[in-house]
Amino acid sequence: MNQTFIDRTFDNIRQMWREIRGNPVVRSLGFDDDASRKDHWRRQIADCLAHRGGAVSARGRAAELGHDFLRLGEDGKKQFLHVLLNEFDVDRTGVAAIIKDWDQADDAAERTMLEARLRNELVPPYRKLLQEFNALPQGVKFLVDLRADLLRWRQDAPGLILLEQDLKTLLASWFDIGFLELHRITWNSPASLLEKLIAYEAVHQIRSWDDLKSRLARDRRCFAFFHPGMPNEPLIFVEVALVSGISDNVDVLIDRDPDSDVSDPKGADTAIFYSISNAQSGLAGISFGDFLIKRVVAELQRDLPNLRQFATLSPMPGFRRWLVKMRDAHVAPSRKPKPLARKNRENIEPVSAPVDEQSLAPEPDAIPEGIMAALRDCGPLVSADDGVGEGDDNAGQREIPPAARAALLQLGAHYLLNERRPARLTALDPVAHFHLSNGARVERLNLDANSSAAGQAQSFGMMVNYLYQAGDIEKNHENYVGAGKIAASGTVRRLAG
Amino acid sequence: MNQTFIDRTFDNIRQMWREIRGNPVVRSLGFDDDASRKDHWRRQIADCLAHRGGAVSARGRAAELGHDFLRLGEDGKKQFLHVLLNEFDVDRTGVAAIIKDWDQADDAAERTMLEARLRNELVPPYRKLLQEFNALPQGVKFLVDLRADLLRWRQDAPGLILLEQDLKTLLASWFDIGFLELHRITWNSPASLLEKLIAYEAVHQIRSWDDLKSRLARDRRCFAFFHPGMPNEPLIFVEVALVSGISDNVDVLIDRDPDSDVSDPKGADTAIFYSISNAQSGLAGISFGDFLIKRVVAELQRDLPNLRQFATLSPMPGFRRWLVKMRDAHVAPSRKPKPLARKNRENIEPVSAPVDEQSLAPEPDAIPEGIMAALRDCGPLVSADDGVGEGDDNAGQREIPPAARAALLQLGAHYLLNERRPARLTALDPVAHFHLSNGARVERLNLDANSSAAGQAQSFGMMVNYLYQAGDIEKNHENYVGAGKIAASGTVRRLAG
Amino acid sequence: MNQTFIDRTFDNIRQMWREIRGNPVVRSLGFDDDASRKDHWRRQIADCLAHRGGAVSARGRAAELGHDFLRLGEDGKKQFLHVLLNEFDVDRTGVAAIIKDWDQADDAAERTMLEARLRNELVPPYRKLLQEFNALPQGVKFLVDLRADLLRWRQDAPGLILLEQDLKTLLASWFDIGFLELHRITWNSPASLLEKLIAYEAVHQIRSWDDLKSRLARDRRCFAFFHPGMPNEPLIFVEVALVSGISDNVDVLIDRDPDSDVSDPKGADTAIFYSISNAQSGLAGISFGDFLIKRVVAELQRDLPNLRQFATLSPMPGFRRWLVKMRDAHVAPSRKPKPLARKNRENIEPVSAPVDEQSLAPEPDAIPEGIMAALRDCGPLVSADDGVGEGDDNAGQREIPPAARAALLQLGAHYLLNERRPARLTALDPVAHFHLSNGARVERLNLDANSSAAGQAQSFGMMVNYLYQAGDIEKNHENYVGAGKIAASGTVRRLAG
Amino acid sequence: MNQTFIDRTFDNIRQMWREIRGNPVVRSLGFDDDASRKDHWRRQIADCLAHRGGAVSARGRAAELGHDFLRLGEDGKKQFLHVLLNEFDVDRTGVAAIIKDWDQADDAAERTMLEARLRNELVPPYRKLLQEFNALPQGVKFLVDLRADLLRWRQDAPGLILLEQDLKTLLASWFDIGFLELHRITWNSPASLLEKLIAYEAVHQIRSWDDLKSRLARDRRCFAFFHPGMPNEPLIFVEVALVSGISDNVDVLIDRDPDSDVSDPKGADTAIFYSISNAQSGLAGISFGDFLIKRVVAELQRDLPNLRQFATLSPMPGFRRWLVKMRDAHVAPSRKPKPLARKNRENIEPVSAPVDEQSLAPEPDAIPEGIMAALRDCGPLVSADDGVGEGDDNAGQREIPPAARAALLQLGAHYLLNERRPARLTALDPVAHFHLSNGARVERLNLDANSSAAGQAQSFGMMVNYLYQAGDIEKNHENYVGAGKIAASGTVRRLAG
Repeated sequence: MNQTFIDRTFDNIRQMWREIRGNPVVRSLGFDDDASRKDHWRRQIADCLAHRGGAVSARGRAAELGHDFLRLGEDGKKQFLHVLLNEFDVDRTGVAAIIKDWDQADDAAERTMLEARLRNELVPPYRKLLQEFNALPQGVKFLVDLRADLLRWRQDAPGLILLEQDLKTLLASWFDIGFLELHRITWNSPASLLEKLIAYEAVHQIRSWDDLKSRLARDRRCFAFFHPGMPNEPLIFVEVALVSGISDNVDVLIDRDPDSDVSDPKGADTAIFYSISNAQSGLAGISFGDFLIKRVVAELQRDLPNLRQFATLSPMPGFRRWLVKMRDAHVAPSRKPKPLARKNRENIEPVSAPVDEQSLAPEPDAIPEGIMAALRDCGPLVSADDGVGEGDDNAGQREIPPAARAALLQLGAHYLLNERRPARLTALDPVAHFHLSNGARVERLNLDANSSAAGQAQSFGMMVNYLYQAGDIEKNHENYVGAGKIAASGTVRRLAG
Repeated sequence: MNQTFIDRTFDNIRQMWREIRGNPVVRSLGFDDDASRKDHWRRQIADCLAHRGGAVSARGRAAELGHDFLRLGEDGKKQFLHVLLNEFDVDRTGVAAIIKDWDQADDAAERTMLEARLRNELVPPYRKLLQEFNALPQGVKFLVDLRADLLRWRQDAPGLILLEQDLKTLLASWFDIGFLELHRITWNSPASLLEKLIAYEAVHQIRSWDDLKSRLARDRRCFAFFHPGMPNEPLIFVEVALVSGISDNVDVLIDRDPDSDVSDPKGADTAIFYSISNAQSGLAGISFGDFLIKRVVAELQRDLPNLRQFATLSPMPGFRRWLVKMRDAHVAPSRKPKPLARKNRENIEPVSAPVDEQSLAPEPDAIPEGIMAALRDCGPLVSADDGVGEGDDNAGQREIPPAARAALLQLGAHYLLNERRPARLTALDPVAHFHLSNGARVERLNLDANSSAAGQAQSFGMMVNYLYQAGDIEKNHENYVGAGKIAASGTVRRLAG
Repeated sequence: MNQTFIDRTFDNIRQMWREIRGNPVVRSLGFDDDASRKDHWRRQIADCLAHRGGAVSARGRAAELGHDFLRLGEDGKKQFLHVLLNEFDVDRTGVAAIIKDWDQADDAAERTMLEARLRNELVPPYRKLLQEFNALPQGVKFLVDLRADLLRWRQDAPGLILLEQDLKTLLASWFDIGFLELHRITWNSPASLLEKLIAYEAVHQIRSWDDLKSRLARDRRCFAFFHPGMPNEPLIFVEVALVSGISDNVDVLIDRDPDSDVSDPKGADTAIFYSISNAQSGLAGISFGDFLIKRVVAELQRDLPNLRQFATLSPMPGFRRWLVKMRDAHVAPSRKPKPLARKNRENIEPVSAPVDEQSLAPEPDAIPEGIMAALRDCGPLVSADDGVGEGDDNAGQREIPPAARAALLQLGAHYLLNERRPARLTALDPVAHFHLSNGARVERLNLDANSSAAGQAQSFGMMVNYLYQAGDIEKNHENYVGAGKIAASGTVRRLAG
Repeated sequence: MNQTFIDRTFDNIRQMWREIRGNPVVRSLGFDDDASRKDHWRRQIADCLAHRGGAVSARGRAAELGHDFLRLGEDGKKQFLHVLLNEFDVDRTGVAAIIKDWDQADDAAERTMLEARLRNELVPPYRKLLQEFNALPQGVKFLVDLRADLLRWRQDAPGLILLEQDLKTLLASWFDIGFLELHRITWNSPASLLEKLIAYEAVHQIRSWDDLKSRLARDRRCFAFFHPGMPNEPLIFVEVALVSGISDNVDVLIDRDPDSDVSDPKGADTAIFYSISNAQSGLAGISFGDFLIKRVVAELQRDLPNLRQFATLSPMPGFRRWLVKMRDAHVAPSRKPKPLARKNRENIEPVSAPVDEQSLAPEPDAIPEGIMAALRDCGPLVSADDGVGEGDDNAGQREIPPAARAALLQLGAHYLLNERRPARLTALDPVAHFHLSNGARVERLNLDANSSAAGQAQSFGMMVNYLYQAGDIEKNHENYVGAGKIAASGTVRRLAG
């Protein structure tokens, strides 16, 4: 038995893939012109969908298509996707026929059957091809990355939105939480996995392997969700510090002297979730963060029964921008704020529901007088800062004028508790929205909590603790989601006026 | 933080599940009457689908529902499913509204968007609940077993067919071949896995642990597909003997003297696939057999480069029944054949597309004269056999009269090559259909190949080799699927006349 | 680079070994006579010890020698060992020279150096060869099995005792407790491991795979020590039942109805160690039992904090024999008792220090009157039993006459607490000696505790609980080992009179 | 059952150990003076050796001693070791008695028994304590590190040499090659393991994680031996480049542009072993290098059948020093060379047999005239270099004057082939000695092969290839070890004159 057939289907796929990963440069696929190339794809896709040569051959063909696709540049990829969309879309005539029958059907039973047929008819053939790509080694990753591309391109070509949504439906089913595995990540984890943490960390940049090692020390925990079809690829991960009392400063958590004593985790009473990052932009909108936090709480409780409190130390990414707008609208004229340009910005968990720039417009009428006063007190701070946009990594830490400190806390509380997305009940701040949806409450505001350039640029170094309290989570969630009521500690509530 | 919430959601689920598995007896769920029970379910399902209390709580609620469901008897389970079907079905008003818009839509773009909306609208809410069940520990297995139930019950209540089909769609996506893992099973595998082979083996019963051990000896191979969501549960498995030349007798493969020499697998030139069994009846119609055979061929080639031939030694499950019908129709009157009642019958791979009893009706006009003659020669054999139906495990081996031997081979070849399902191009014999679809060819017929009661009852102990030849697989498949042309060796072709 | 050299050394070793394991029949090694064979060995051993061709080649040569050795029959093996002993023994001239220097040495420092030299000189060259055998795949197992052979043969040839003792020294170092791994064995363990439990269980025979499965149920535990050089080979294993209160009957632990309810282990307050078996007779005298029990206690405590008591349910293997001797000496004449012939007898842990038959002689003078009376009361029981020796598996259970029940308990207590090995402080009963050395105390005697033939034959079905009480273990051990004082509960102490 | 006993023995050991590893600072052990401290040790050791409280307690006691030991400073550790040596040494009276009996013994059998007794008597009790330390978590590593200490201290106190030698004997038995596991190290290996490679690499420093990653690329291999008692601790490791033709320059192997193409290993015909490092200085003198190279050759052959040549690219660590001595002796006066001070110097495999400084003295009489001429030609090179010692990392690469190039090659060949250790047959260069003992031959000398400071300082950047040729290994080894004959290619032989 010679190797040709089986090899092409199983063995060579692996080899092809390795070549691509090793040499992802775009090379000519050997076609004279676009037309002949498209023609080739058309035939291959048709054969693949028809299972020409059998189901195993179809997978081999899909693998070849995937292989070719990966070697294409952006233009080539878009061309390929248009072939898919244009020529392997829903059969509209078939749909119309069923709808006609449905319109004329007499009884419920008949309609039920027609609905089932209609549901099938409405699945575009290209969706079947997407699933066939799963035959590629790391085929799931292929599809996740494909969706990441589509999310970037979908504005360019309307059809791509449908394709992207179809792919999202498929991925949402495959990445059902029931299939995900929670793993603790330690310094004993593979280096190939750990380097991904360095790359994907979106909130507090990991600057070196030493930095990473200190985040995996004995009094730290790191957990991630994985999918069995994408081993060694974290989907989302969280970094936790085991401490005494709720932390009010992220610098001391992150910038540890490597020689400093590491405290015994058995003595800690509080777990601080100080960073949570999505690692796969192709899974945007398929949410794991809520599950991750609660699974990790359960793991920590089992492992360390001394833990009494579970809280975050979170950024307020939209605060400064909001403050500048407020100042401009109510206190002084302004310039357009620079766009947020931080690396990995899209990985920040709550940003999976990205903030519409429009939503940042302040709502002038509803501002209480105390807040207006605070706004004037903060004036100098915001004014002095005119040249310093977010993303200006050289900003450094600026001392907050004593007079502005109390005002800043008031404004922060007001921003979190009272500012909403236009025409919605949900909090304006995306991180707040994420934790409030999960059932947490706003616990405490901390000035001077983050000296990094990003922290300064986002919120003058202010950070917030969200508290997860077992008995209140469901109630908090329902109040927030159902009625827009935001849970907060008395202190924060008083600050907000 | 007390344990109530998180525990109910994650920890207790595991505990609940263990209790059920340990004590699967049906117990009262503590309701006074069916109405209050249904009412309870209705509320729970609604809360679950509304993600009341958040997504994590919804999973907890789904787990409780699953837990209750498993403790129900058959009647209770059906009641539950009817609540699902009746109250969480597609919103027909919504469907009608979209269809109305579609009918009136002007341009293609609008129709495209409406089609996407229609597709969503046509997904019944209960399907979402099915997916939520995946939160159960071994939730995938729960759903697979649920479908096995539905396949048995769907004749009883029409709505169950739709539910079963919905579940099939979901499982077909989750059990995409790209997610399956091929593992070799050896005597070093967990006993808890091996006992499942004993239970699931459908073709040649495994009679004891000693028998199993001999099927996992050095000159044997056993491979199975697994799904990561159902560890330790084989989906389908194949047993292979490594021999010299194509085997013509399954007894010598199976009934080995435990003290006999085991030959060196490196010396073998032929791999005989002598048994292939589906292990999950809930996955009927989602086919893995073709992939399994070809992946195993690839594994064996890599491991044992000396192998030159890959063939099966397969039963002919419908042959005797067909012959009796033929005899009744053309040679002599008859009785209705006893139904096939073998344990595990439904596990036999090709039966996943079960044979319609009607299809066994012979096609009198097309019978060549040589075959008619053979039929007469076999008369005594069939007649003598009147009291012996399939499933009569005491039948024992009956000697084939010398006069009938040649005739039996002729009839066997005719049966495999010429008899088709009514109004179709596909082979009448389900095992033949399976291997021919995979691209194999009919290679050789073997008399006296299976002395077991089942073998006698199915085909007078005759078995057939299907040959998988790398270079011909795609061509054979296309000829068979596209044109109904069956590939066969010259010898078999000559026998068929 | 051709394969000859490296292959012989690494690859082929594995192959050779597999052949032997597959075909352990003794075949001619192709020598004309014993002399030429011995000559061949002599040269090979010499080359191996001289590291001819380098250290890697020496290992290859050792592997070939081991390979040849395994193919030999018993006579051939003994011949080989004699070549080793006779020709690769200590160099006596060298020893004498050092001793002479030592006698004449002036100062301590010089003597110290000479002692070091002497120690080296006294290591016979053949011991180096033993270590070289470790190069074989499963070389450790080779040496363990070699010692098992030597233990059987050492009476035949005096030199073999030295070899056996040398090997014991080597194995005791390699099997240091620090290298052993404790693993729990469950129904998910490899079948190839589980079948060894069936083979090695020495106390309560495992009759089938179903029996084994029930011993690994949810309310049972099984733990074993393993050595990394002998994976999948248990060294010693213990079976534990998780129950409420201290068990008084081993039948109910072992002969469970497979359909009976399995109780929740979390509800158990007592762990009963009802069987402990050595699995490697070649490790006799290298004791792991004490460590195993205490490691398992620690594991169980961690896993099941509800457990309050840790006790055994143990046989009294020497009781009946002792009683018959007592009867013969003090009450009535007797016959010689049949020898103990149970399968696997040597595996019973405490028997690793085998009972000297002489030690069974009773000590007539020290018998208290109450015991003498009890002895007379038991007379009929022992007399009635004359034809029934141990090992008579058909003995069945015999009812104990009511009159004898109290007497039997008295005698049992006396036997355990007062009978010692001649000229020693240690208990006569080997199982008692084992647990008392470990620091346990005699807690309770149970009549009708074991209906098996072996149980009847050893002790009329009586069994004993030894209790391991954390706070007393060290004290009990010291009292027993140092002063021969046996710890016992008040009840047992009163029974013993 | 309270936790005291079992805990102290098993659980707390782990905890104690963790504390030490986390806080290895020397703290007071709470004793008033050295005398009471020594007294405490004396009692603990005695109790431990007497197995007071049982064998399990003895291990607990050993663990406590080990725990205390690790917290001591160097002085304290030495004090502890002297207590061991002075008070738990061989019982000299017992030895004398046996020797006396031996002197007077009549026959061989009696002497044999006495020898066995003598062998036991000569084992000092403290050796038993060493073995008890194996009870510590990572007890093997404890002992290996203890020996590393002893190797440094043994010059200070004569008794320590004996202790060190005893420990070596124990470790040599435990680290028998048969117990070692060869593992490939890749970028998927745990970071905690990989950081050890960075720390232990002795030949070509690994400068960063990026550097490490490039050494584990697709066309590289790294293998290490591990011991099951020291998981995650490499004993020795080798780095291999898969290339075409024998490499003549280590810079191109190591300083790769990270973006450069990585070649397909399947196309390589040559494996270059360019670095081999011992990782445990406590195992000095227990040699694994020969086994490692040959096992890796076997692994590579299996995996990559295209490989045709296996060679090293090795440093010549003693060449420059030798050349300077030669120049001083025969051409010009000199200064004393600075000592070699490179980090990790002791890890270089062959240095396990460290070069006696005396051995560097040249042998003036035997120098052929051609070599004397070459020496004069190289004069300027050596002279110009006067200020540049080894270890001067700023030396940078110095161009070799054209006139000196040929001379340098001649001198290199002469140095490798003709210079021997005084009064021995073995090569003067330690790396040469290592590979020649393994059966390799000197294949080629390469100028400009290593631009690093170390390479310049050791050998003016010259490196040498040793070739491992399967068919010649045993012969080469025998010729070298037995007769001092060094295998070399014709070219090198001609260069040496």
